[in-house]
Amino acid sequence: MTRTRSVTVAVDAMGGDHAPEAVLEGVTAALVADPLLLVALVGPPEIVHPFAERHPSVTAVSASEVIGMDEHPAAAVRAKKDSSIVVGCRLVRDGRADAFFSAGNTGACMSAATLVMGRIEGVARPALATILPARDRRWILLDVGANAEATAEHLVQFAHMGAAYAKVVLGVPRPTVGLLSIGEEATKGTPLVQEAHGMMAENVPGFAGNVEGDDIPGGKTDVVVTDGFTGNVALKLMEGLARELLAQVKDALTSSAASKVAAAVLKPALSRLRDDLDPDAVGGAPLLGVDGVCIIGHGSSGPRAVEAALGVAATAVRGELVAKIAHSLECAAG
Amino acid sequence: MTRTRSVTVAVDAMGGDHAPEAVLEGVTAALVADPLLLVALVGPPEIVHPFAERHPSVTAVSASEVIGMDEHPAAAVRAKKDSSIVVGCRLVRDGRADAFFSAGNTGACMSAATLVMGRIEGVARPALATILPARDRRWILLDVGANAEATAEHLVQFAHMGAAYAKVVLGVPRPTVGLLSIGEEATKGTPLVQEAHGMMAENVPGFAGNVEGDDIPGGKTDVVVTDGFTGNVALKLMEGLARELLAQVKDALTSSAASKVAAAVLKPALSRLRDDLDPDAVGGAPLLGVDGVCIIGHGSSGPRAVEAALGVAATAVRGELVAKIAHSLECAAG
Repeated sequence: MTRTRSVTVAVDAMGGDHAPEAVLEGVTAALVADPLLLVALVGPPEIVHPFAERHPSVTAVSASEVIGMDEHPAAAVRAKKDSSIVVGCRLVRDGRADAFFSAGNTGACMSAATLVMGRIEGVARPALATILPARDRRWILLDVGANAEATAEHLVQFAHMGAAYAKVVLGVPRPTVGLLSIGEEATKGTPLVQEAHGMMAENVPGFAGNVEGDDIPGGKTDVVVTDGFTGNVALKLMEGLARELLAQVKDALTSSAASKVAAAVLKPALSRLRDDLDPDAVGGAPLLGVDGVCIIGHGSSGPRAVEAALGVAATAVRGELVAKIAHSLECAAG
Repeated sequence: MTRTRSVTVAVDAMGGDHAPEAVLEGVTAALVADPLLLVALVGPPEIVHPFAERHPSVTAVSASEVIGMDEHPAAAVRAKKDSSIVVGCRLVRDGRADAFFSAGNTGACMSAATLVMGRIEGVARPALATILPARDRRWILLDVGANAEATAEHLVQFAHMGAAYAKVVLGVPRPTVGLLSIGEEATKGTPLVQEAHGMMAENVPGFAGNVEGDDIPGGKTDVVVTDGFTGNVALKLMEGLARELLAQVKDALTSSAASKVAAAVLKPALSRLRDDLDPDAVGGAPLLGVDGVCIIGHGSSGPRAVEAALGVAATAVRGELVAKIAHSLECAAG
């Protein structure tokens, strides 16, 4: 990653189950890791001001309200104009920050970003994209839940936006794009997926056809496109299964006295594997298609996830993600 | 499993990538494991007759045609009336066998079973159900690919059929049923899933609400219901991810000389884990809703998968799966 310019990220101090402590710790670590990172910390004055006083790279921005994790997203965004989420998005719209990050109410973040930042011209539906690990590479899955339903046209836009994100964040000049389906052939899947296949084949550079569920853990393509229902199920399934399998491996390793000794020898190697699979290693998913960089973290984000998400935000800004998405959609429109 | 009666399973000798060898080996093992099992082996005379002569529990049934793995299912079933798949289904329809098993062309098996055996009264769409492992239990996922699309009514029927299968094959008297969605609340998911949620809440005994992707590897409910697109993606994703993670664990275990020694100590425990996760351990998925027991195996089935699938077939017959599905749909219809 080249760090050629400073980046200001507006950070929701109150976002997530472990806020504000995990957020503040993550910000501290991110500032150490990236000396050109600046943070506009948004939240209650009694939290953000003392922190900003101790950190020269941090500016405090007061927000009197907090949107809870379980509030109805759209209603909360409308009602709480001085919430940390809405204020943070406004900083990006007004050019006072380059990106916004929150580990708070995902729906409220998407709703606020779309309302306040607006959409890139031509974008029908913003989509959440996440970076996932494969054995020796990383790949991108979208939509992982911004929209429960998608039309074929939406899926095609997701393909363009996902490819632009892959260029920026994976550093792949010509990303390959797969359409998630239930068979390799163009005739497999729902009528909607078949229609999207035809459109992508004509319109999406790097389109590599359908990918199936068993292809994707290996990272067969750089980008995998699906609707937000299937994508969310797939993402959570991968997280749940990785957790479950590692627990079973741990059980197997501690099933006898001899295996406990052996397991101690293997601990470093297995810890590396666990780290590779840890969703906190990526930290945040961008809402692609809004006119600004908006990175949304897991509600359960710990300090490591917050630090990683700020890295994703800075990479997206430095790689000019929004301009690249706008450009690829313009080219596709012809 | 109580083995109180003999069961005759019609077996497609030509089904799967490793047929006929893997099928014949699996049949041999299944006959040893279950002395009350009888097999009607369907296929080319030169294969089925010599085998039947060597095994007193096996009857040979000649079929002159074979449907290839890549043939168009419906067209092949219409054109090849003397194929092992069509002949095997006919044996069930005519009462000459209690169940049919094939590891051949999945679409052709579904098509032939539906056409030849017919559907249980009231069933709109048959669904493929598979048994999956959780840490200390097993659970059932359906539909894993019989229909790419489903209406809310179809999903409700899948719930009833899945629960009947759980009673028979898991031995759970009152199975819990979850609806796969992207949030716990009834208002989450597509409009179709929300509609199905409302209908299941009123109509499906044991309905436990929505389950999410990260719940399902732990086996939160005995049955998980979804459409065939999402279910197929989820099933293949679990298979692919388990394979990938175990490969990574193996890499970690053999990364140094010391860890190789340690890994040798752990080998038995890890082999048990691998066996637990092996899709061959279950072997076959029934097509629920057809008027007969039809078990369909992976194209890649080895002897162990064939043996396991014949066990599933016998359990389904002895547990009166078809009658139980018919009964639960009658009760639901009121």
